[in-house]
Amino acid sequence: MDKIETPQKVNLRDKLALFTEHWSPKTVGRLNNYEIKVVKVQGEFVWHTHEDTDELFLVIDGSLTIQLRDRDIELGPGEMFVVPRGVEHCPKAVGEVAALLIEPEGVVNTGEAGGPLTAVPESLI
Amino acid sequence: MDKIETPQKVNLRDKLALFTEHWSPKTVGRLNNYEIKVVKVQGEFVWHTHEDTDELFLVIDGSLTIQLRDRDIELGPGEMFVVPRGVEHCPKAVGEVAALLIEPEGVVNTGEAGGPLTAVPESLI
Repeated sequence: MDKIETPQKVNLRDKLALFTEHWSPKTVGRLNNYEIKVVKVQGEFVWHTHEDTDELFLVIDGSLTIQLRDRDIELGPGEMFVVPRGVEHCPKAVGEVAALLIEPEGVVNTGEAGGPLTAVPESLI
Repeated sequence: MDKIETPQKVNLRDKLALFTEHWSPKTVGRLNNYEIKVVKVQGEFVWHTHEDTDELFLVIDGSLTIQLRDRDIELGPGEMFVVPRGVEHCPKAVGEVAALLIEPEGVVNTGEAGGPLTAVPESLI
């Protein structure tokens, strides 16, 4: 039998304070079959694509560049960008960035590219 | 033929500066079949339920109370709560609150309750 959970509010900064590693999104909430995740990133990720879904990035702290093949999207705190499905992208950040990600459950962070930065799903709920 | 849109970043505060009315969510982005909306609220809304979907509230500015029948959820900036489908709720705020809402497209703000606070969908994309 499923555990019955009483839904709680989530303080995003409190969740971010629970970990230090980069490029490893943590699920902090669920919206229907979507996962709300927080992540810390620094440096450059890998070029990858999610063929079946859009992916939302909302920056909480820091300056994030989402590289697309034809342009760069520069995001500061309170700015968001939705990478359309099928669009190759590669996030990078000079300093550390904290961000919110929203995407359907089961999406792999490295998309079709795989490789050593592929994260094991982890929940902080 | 659909217009081909080049996706742009969204600055949430810039979008919030475009309107003053309360309880009238504005769509600022899309994630698959979900809509990302910003809203300003003040005062008390109506008790209502969304039978078919969860609904995410993320406070940007101010203090928002999401009244449930068995408890109140108090949210400040950077705090979020997902109202589960089928759970009756009524947001209220003493001062003005700016918040992000995420829910599937077509969700009516007053759920099954209807009434004068029912908003006409509006896009700021």
